[in-house]
Amino acid sequence: MHARGVSHRRAECPVARTVDVIGDRWSLLIVRDVLDGIGRFSELQRNLGLAKNILTTRLRELVAHGILEVVPAADGSAYHEYALTPKGRELFGVIVALRQWGEAHMFDEGEPHSRLLDSEHQLPVRYQVTDAEGRPITAGDAFVRKVRQHP
Amino acid sequence: MHARGVSHRRAECPVARTVDVIGDRWSLLIVRDVLDGIGRFSELQRNLGLAKNILTTRLRELVAHGILEVVPAADGSAYHEYALTPKGRELFGVIVALRQWGEAHMFDEGEPHSRLLDSEHQLPVRYQVTDAEGRPITAGDAFVRKVRQHP
Repeated sequence: MHARGVSHRRAECPVARTVDVIGDRWSLLIVRDVLDGIGRFSELQRNLGLAKNILTTRLRELVAHGILEVVPAADGSAYHEYALTPKGRELFGVIVALRQWGEAHMFDEGEPHSRLLDSEHQLPVRYQVTDAEGRPITAGDAFVRKVRQHP
Repeated sequence: MHARGVSHRRAECPVARTVDVIGDRWSLLIVRDVLDGIGRFSELQRNLGLAKNILTTRLRELVAHGILEVVPAADGSAYHEYALTPKGRELFGVIVALRQWGEAHMFDEGEPHSRLLDSEHQLPVRYQVTDAEGRPITAGDAFVRKVRQHP
């Protein structure tokens, strides 16, 4: 899964380590689908329009990284399904961030798109980056402190 | 930039449209670096350890998608640099989400990693998904409403 053999496995940057295991459009869309309750190989294949061998590879990698696990089918049949582990379910935040940016920038005015709603109010889910006191911040309000400055 | 010729440009799902333009580890790491103030081609190349031709292609795509723009060097020299457009700067939320997941799941206990701090308090930045009333939610508290259910 490492493009051109490069791995960020030992990087000190958490962004680099994350994209090393999930920084791939198909992996991200598989996680999106499983979050939406799609767990069967055939359903994932149909929904993603992805070749079987590529889907097989991506699923295997996501299982190896502890993001997905193979479970018995929910309907009690002999099939198995893919489910998110607790670690995988926490990618919810990443998927929501990708969604919110897409809603803001990838649709024309009035063009319809799917919506992520909270179950209780059926209103759009929101995400926000905040400072330690809970105040919303943007890119200009933050900076990265490297490890070497903090031995 | 579309893996195997597949494009989600007309997808109704904002996640799909976003990963279509940014769902690639190098594009995400370039955005991370430019957010951190790295704008020169040579600096990006050194920091990412990426082949020149691949970096050139990725930068061109990010410019074509309106995420990066080419600007004169900040030091007044003849060089040019890459800067994020307002649309590109809003990917801050995506990068923070990737970082937060990586901090939680990709480092051993006590293993050092870089930190994203807010400029005012120099305390870690936080990222939260909430319902419309601002209460934190997780994956189990939300669902996707497709366009076809809302003509």
